[in-house]
Parts: sequence; C-alpha cells; structure tokens
Amino acid sequence: MEKVISELKKILPPGNVITEKEELVSYSYDATADMPSQVPDAVVMPETTEQVQAIVKVAKESKTPIYTRGAGTNLSGGTIPTKKGIVLLTVKMNNIEELDVKNLNAVVQPGVIIQDLNDRLVEHGLMFPPDPGTVKTATMGGATAECSGGLRGLKYGVMKHYIMGLEVVLANGEVVFFGGKTVKNVTAYDMVKLFVGSEGTLGIITKIVAKLIPAPEDKKSMLATFDKLEDAGNAVVDIVANKVTPATLEIMDNATIKTVENYAKVGLPTDADAILLIEVDGISEVVAKDANVVVDLVKKNNGTIKVAETDEERDGLWAARRAALPALAQMSPTTVLEDATVPRSELTKMLIELQRIAKDYNLNIGTFGHAGDGNLHPTILCDERNEEEMKRVHKAVDEIFAAALKLGGTLSGEHGIGMAKMKYLKDEIGESGVALLKTVKEALDPDYILNPGKMVPLKGE
Amino acid sequence: MEKVISELKKILPPGNVITEKEELVSYSYDATADMPSQVPDAVVMPETTEQVQAIVKVAKESKTPIYTRGAGTNLSGGTIPTKKGIVLLTVKMNNIEELDVKNLNAVVQPGVIIQDLNDRLVEHGLMFPPDPGTVKTATMGGATAECSGGLRGLKYGVMKHYIMGLEVVLANGEVVFFGGKTVKNVTAYDMVKLFVGSEGTLGIITKIVAKLIPAPEDKKSMLATFDKLEDAGNAVVDIVANKVTPATLEIMDNATIKTVENYAKVGLPTDADAILLIEVDGISEVVAKDANVVVDLVKKNNGTIKVAETDEERDGLWAARRAALPALAQMSPTTVLEDATVPRSELTKMLIELQRIAKDYNLNIGTFGHAGDGNLHPTILCDERNEEEMKRVHKAVDEIFAAALKLGGTLSGEHGIGMAKMKYLKDEIGESGVALLKTVKEALDPDYILNPGKMVPLKGE
Repeated sequence: MEKVISELKKILPPGNVITEKEELVSYSYDATADMPSQVPDAVVMPETTEQVQAIVKVAKESKTPIYTRGAGTNLSGGTIPTKKGIVLLTVKMNNIEELDVKNLNAVVQPGVIIQDLNDRLVEHGLMFPPDPGTVKTATMGGATAECSGGLRGLKYGVMKHYIMGLEVVLANGEVVFFGGKTVKNVTAYDMVKLFVGSEGTLGIITKIVAKLIPAPEDKKSMLATFDKLEDAGNAVVDIVANKVTPATLEIMDNATIKTVENYAKVGLPTDADAILLIEVDGISEVVAKDANVVVDLVKKNNGTIKVAETDEERDGLWAARRAALPALAQMSPTTVLEDATVPRSELTKMLIELQRIAKDYNLNIGTFGHAGDGNLHPTILCDERNEEEMKRVHKAVDEIFAAALKLGGTLSGEHGIGMAKMKYLKDEIGESGVALLKTVKEALDPDYILNPGKMVPLKGE
Repeated sequence: MEKVISELKKILPPGNVITEKEELVSYSYDATADMPSQVPDAVVMPETTEQVQAIVKVAKESKTPIYTRGAGTNLSGGTIPTKKGIVLLTVKMNNIEELDVKNLNAVVQPGVIIQDLNDRLVEHGLMFPPDPGTVKTATMGGATAECSGGLRGLKYGVMKHYIMGLEVVLANGEVVFFGGKTVKNVTAYDMVKLFVGSEGTLGIITKIVAKLIPAPEDKKSMLATFDKLEDAGNAVVDIVANKVTPATLEIMDNATIKTVENYAKVGLPTDADAILLIEVDGISEVVAKDANVVVDLVKKNNGTIKVAETDEERDGLWAARRAALPALAQMSPTTVLEDATVPRSELTKMLIELQRIAKDYNLNIGTFGHAGDGNLHPTILCDERNEEEMKRVHKAVDEIFAAALKLGGTLSGEHGIGMAKMKYLKDEIGESGVALLKTVKEALDPDYILNPGKMVPLKGE
C-alpha cells in the first residue's frame, strides 16, 4: 500500500492525499446506521478527469479498491470502504462548467452540491428538480450514482430523469462520454442510465450534463389531518387517480408527527393518526384548480385540510417535513431507516403492515415518506449496543421487505442497494437477475476494484 | 439448419413456423432504404415467454442468429437478418394483459400495437404518450427495443421515459424481470433502460410494464408560416426559451411542403420557405395562455400564424404532418431518411447546413421533423439503381452526420443505429465508447446470436 500511496502523491497536489489515521476515520462510515465500518488506507481528492484516470490506473495495477464518495449522505452503506483501499472524494471537482439556458441544461462536475446548482438557476427562472432530503449537502455525483429521489419525485421524477450525458472513467482507465445536450439521443446502448444508480461500481462519474426545467410560476402547500391512517392512504390514491399530480405528497404517521412536533414546535396536530403534506405547483390557474380537487378529496376521505396562506406557513410545513429524519434520529442512539416502496394503490396495506410489524417485534417505528410515490421510510428507533433489540430490528426489516415485495413493490425506491440490502436482492430480481448484474459488473470491472461489495455480491459470493 | 427447423416445429404450434421461400422474402428487409437484404431460414411466431425461451435455447445450441421483429417499421435496418437464421415475429404475443388504472400503468406483450393500447385507454381518460409516425402499425416491443420517439417527444419524452418494467429472455435462455409497478425503483442496475433501445441485441423483450398518464383536457393546434427558414428555426428556440413546452413542435421545409400539398391537398402554403406545426395541450387555461405566447413569438420572428378553429382543421394539419414521409417517398424510387439531431439552439445552423449539402451534392433533400427536439429528418429523394447518384447520396449522408456532431448533436434522435449508422458510431462515442458497447454485448451475448451486426460491430470487426 505504501507504493500505491507514493504513486497517488505523484498524481495529486500536496494536501489532496490524506493518510493520517485520525482524518481517515471520518471516511470509514456514511449516513447509514447499523453497518460495519472500515478505515480506508488513503483519501484522495482529484481535481480533474485526468487525475481520476491516473488514480484508477494505479488502483488497477495494484488491484486496490476505490470507493468514490460525494458528501457521504447515502442511506444504504454505499460509500463504506468495505475492503480498505482508496476513498476518492469528489469535493474538489465542484465547478458548474456551463449553464446552457437556451437548451435547458447545465454541465457540472460531480462534486457540485445540488442546492448550489439550484441557487445559480434562480435568476434564470429554472430549476433542477431532484430534491433529496439532504439537498444542501448532497452532491450531483453522489445523487447520480445513487439515483436519488426526494420530495418532488411524484411529479418531477428522480435523478435518472434529469441526467442527459455522463463522462465516466472506467475500471480499465479509459474515459467514455455518452449522451449529450440533445433532448433525444438513441445512439448506442443507454450507458448513461446504466451508470446512473450503479452506485460507483461500474465507473467513476467525472462530468454530468443535467437537464433543467422552467421553475413553476406558482405553488400552494396544504396540511391534511386524518384520524385514521387508512383514510390518509386512501386520500393519496384518490388524488392521483383523479389526475392531480402534486409536486409533493408526503405522509407522516402519529409517531413521526409527535416526534417532529416535539423537536421543531411547528404546530403539527399531535393527536392525528396521520397527516399529509401536499404541494401543487404550475401556472396559477392550474394551482387553484388542483388545490380545490385536493381539498375535496381529503374531505371525502374524512380528513380536515388547511391551506398555507403565507410563505411563512408554507416554509413551516416543509421545515416540519425535512425535520422528520433528524427529529426521529435524536430520539434514540440508532436510527434504521428503510426505503420500502409499493405501487401507490397498495400504500394503505403497507402502512397497516408496518403498524403490525412494529407491534409484533415491540419496536418503535416512525413512518414518513413520499406517499404519492408509494415510497415509505419506516424508521426504526433503536440502540445498536442492545443486541437483543437489534435482533428484533433485523427480523422486522426482513418482514418489511417481504411485505413490500408481496405487495408488488421494490426493496428500494431511492436509497439504493449498497451493502444494506444486497442480501434481499434475489428476492426481488431472482437468481437469474442477480447473475445478470454480476455479468455486467464483471464485464466492466473484472477485478472488482470499483466500490467492491456494493450492489453486486463479491466474486464467488 | 434442417435440424434447427425441426426443433422449432416441436416448440411451436403448426402454422407458427414459416419456411416457405416466397413468404420468407417479406422478412428480408424492413422500412429502411438502401440496405442489403437477406432472406432468413425461418420465421417463428411464439405465443408465450416459455416458447421464446425454448427458441433461444435451440438457437444457442446451434449458434443460429435470432432477429426479433415487431412490425418492421424501423428506419435503421434494425430487423434485417444480416446473417440468415431465425426471424422471431412478436405478432402473436399481442395481449394487453392488464390495465392498472389506479397505478397508471399497463402490462402488455411485445406484439401489442401502440395505437391499440391507446384506443383501450380512451375510456379511462389516459394515454401512452410515445407517438412514432407509424403508431398504427408499430408494436410496443419494437418501439421499446428501438427507443422510438415521435411527434410528442418535446413535452412527453420518448419510449424510455414510459417503460417501468421489462421481462426479457437472455441469450443464455434465462428469463429476467427488472423494474415493476412502483414509480420509483433503484433496485439493481437500471437494466430496464439498458434493454430499452438495445435493438434486440441484448435480449428478447417478452413483457412490458408501460407507464400511462392522464390525457390532456384540452389542446390547440397552430400553423405558422415563414418566408425564411432561419426565422422558423429562431421561433422554435424562442418558444422553448420562453418556457412554453408544446406537446408538438414540427417543421417542414419548402421541398416537403410542396410535396405534401401536392400529395394530400390540405391547403399548405407552397410558397413558404418553412412552416411550423404546433400543438399545445393541458388544462384549458394553460392551453389559452401558451397559445398566446406562441402566437406572439411567431410574429416576432416574422411569421404569420393560424390557429385551427375546428377539429377538422386540426386533424387536417396533423394529417399533413404524417403525410410528409409517404408524400416524399412517392416522389422517387428510393427515400433515404436520416435522423440527425442537434441541441435545439443549433437548429437554424443545421437547417442551413442541410440546404448547403443538398446544393453541393445536387440532391433533392426534403427536411421535416421534430424541431422542438432539434430532431430533423432530412429525406433524400433518389434512385438506388443510379450508382452515380447513390455515391453522392452517401457522401451527403456522411456530411449530414459530421455537421450534426460538429454542432454538439447526435447520430440518432429516435431511429436507432442498427446497420445504417454503425460506421459513424466511433465519431460520436469514440473508440473507447464503442469498445464499451462491445464489452456489454459480449458479456450478455458472447456468441452474437441476438440480432448480430446491429448497433455493435460483429466480433473481431
């Protein structure tokens, strides 16, 4: 490893290679709870594609693993250095290289923070829609590699819908570029989409052409309160079935409401069984029309609804939503956050299943999430040091995924597979599906040097 | 081959294996002009996934190529049986298996005709947006494999945006299913998108989960007339830059206008240098607002504009647009239709380049296409039997692609690479890009039995 580190120091400016143990520890884990951690041998911070290429060549030669990392906000153990080796941090590749307002796209390096891009777009009346909860710290590269989602997924989609072109350094050290600035492109296999969501296991993203859209002219936020969880679930299904597509359609169960209110004091109804936070956007006429439909359907499903009248009220609602995870997280030493996703019509059934599982395993589970997408985040409050409790947690997680799959759902709506869900993969895509992933992985990265042990089982496993 | 045919006859019902020479000839070519043709050894019509699997196993054993074919409407030589072998027709796999109105999706077999699906959706107020010119004959499977586009691409996107899940038979005979009915899914690599647009070279699609959307409440169609081609190009850029996203924004140059008018007598302005056909849709208030913006911007760019007042007028306009290709096609024995696509801002430059190329090579080129997408269809009217002329045609095609790439464009916006554009592939994605495609192809289909000679050069080529 010493030789590798001395090679890395030849490639990068001084200060861009970290090898001090106390600093390396910060890169031994990410935002995911209940994962084994591992201190890497070195952290490198390249500034150019050529430097990334040179690093990969060193890694390839010496068969040293490389873990590409943005802000480390992922929730599936995607950036943990499982087998030691090199963490490649993209923080110094943070230029917005071009804003092409005419063609509605931006060319950015992977280390650009999503919010920073959006801040630059405001003056042009544009936006980059994907909106993960950690939008103020998460990077474009990390969000692309994880195919992140967020609060606006229902109407606007997720990262993959906004990545038009990618420059990628492959495991063999070659640089490829696919896609580009045309809104249509069917030249070659859709390698862009193959790299999006591949969790750093197939290549290292060094440049991104991102699609932008006009920001909505107007928006309206609403808070709907329900005495019964089922009514909230049914309201969600009704809203979308009635052809309103809110930008955001979020749910919180009672456990989450209480915790958030206790944490943030925003005036949430703590005795409600569930609330929905809803935002419709578009041109003013559409917003008014859609809001009326939402109000009617909430009432039809036995809910009460309040429309935010001021920007302050609106901001309060969304601050409450974004507080859900931090509020739950400060309740207990460990927060196991899951990502089970079901077809929207099965949402109510899944919510009921989650209540049953919490009861069966005597666990404190708060559920919130992107109800409009059928994408729930059941969050188990626990303590990693309590072995007996963690056994129950693991069994509960097994049952959560089994329930989601039984309802026609998926293991992950937006957090990825990483290390956390690899063992469930065959339950969704079968042995033949897992075998196909391995075939692709081994074709592109035969020595498993790129983020080994994530998404695809290691060689021979 | 005799043994292979007898095996195929064991798998399929009588009548589902065609071996009569005179019938086989119909499958030796597709809708693409100026391509070498080749008569296959057999045509098979499976009815189930299991039959497809059994056919692939026979093919694998004997290393016989399989060319999967829907309606054969593709325009890049994608279904021509280059090396003889088996044409696998999907016509008998044409069930709409499920309309899931609550979750806005449909599960269909690959042989379902796009228009047939849309006809079934009308009563539910839904639509499947991708709208290739041949929507009345093209199949869901063919359009998925080619990642087809069409007239509504600007606002609604293309096939890849509407494919949520796929069942695929791989070259090794295994069946895989990826994706599903959840609107978010990041489980596994995005294999769904890898198969979409892979032109039958990586697997055989046997089932499709298609995303549906609510049909727009209202629409308005307009015809804009320009004395100068550049003004039309600039109007297109202005409309989108002013945040109106028409469902359809089509252009026709003078050569196309004259030909269409002569063919269809719909009252097009034959002395105009260019026309735009524009449709805005959505809820009534949006439609009215967007239409006003369009009218203003057309006038600002020295155009005149007419809004279709009746359904009849509207239908007339779109019949004219759909007549463009057949009208041009009947002008000459051979119609070489290209698919060069540029970033929208470069549209005017590309139109001027096309005029120059037509003049330089003394060719009759009619240009029409999806101007809003920067996706043009320059159509060269020629005669395959005239060797000298075809030499000029081939040189002109070379220059068309060189011009598109120079402007930051792509070889294909929606027709695919197939056989027709394989030689240009490295000009866009480089040698390293082509090498990566080969790596993926050989990992999934090591013996090149699936549609060999399309998209990716043959082994050793």
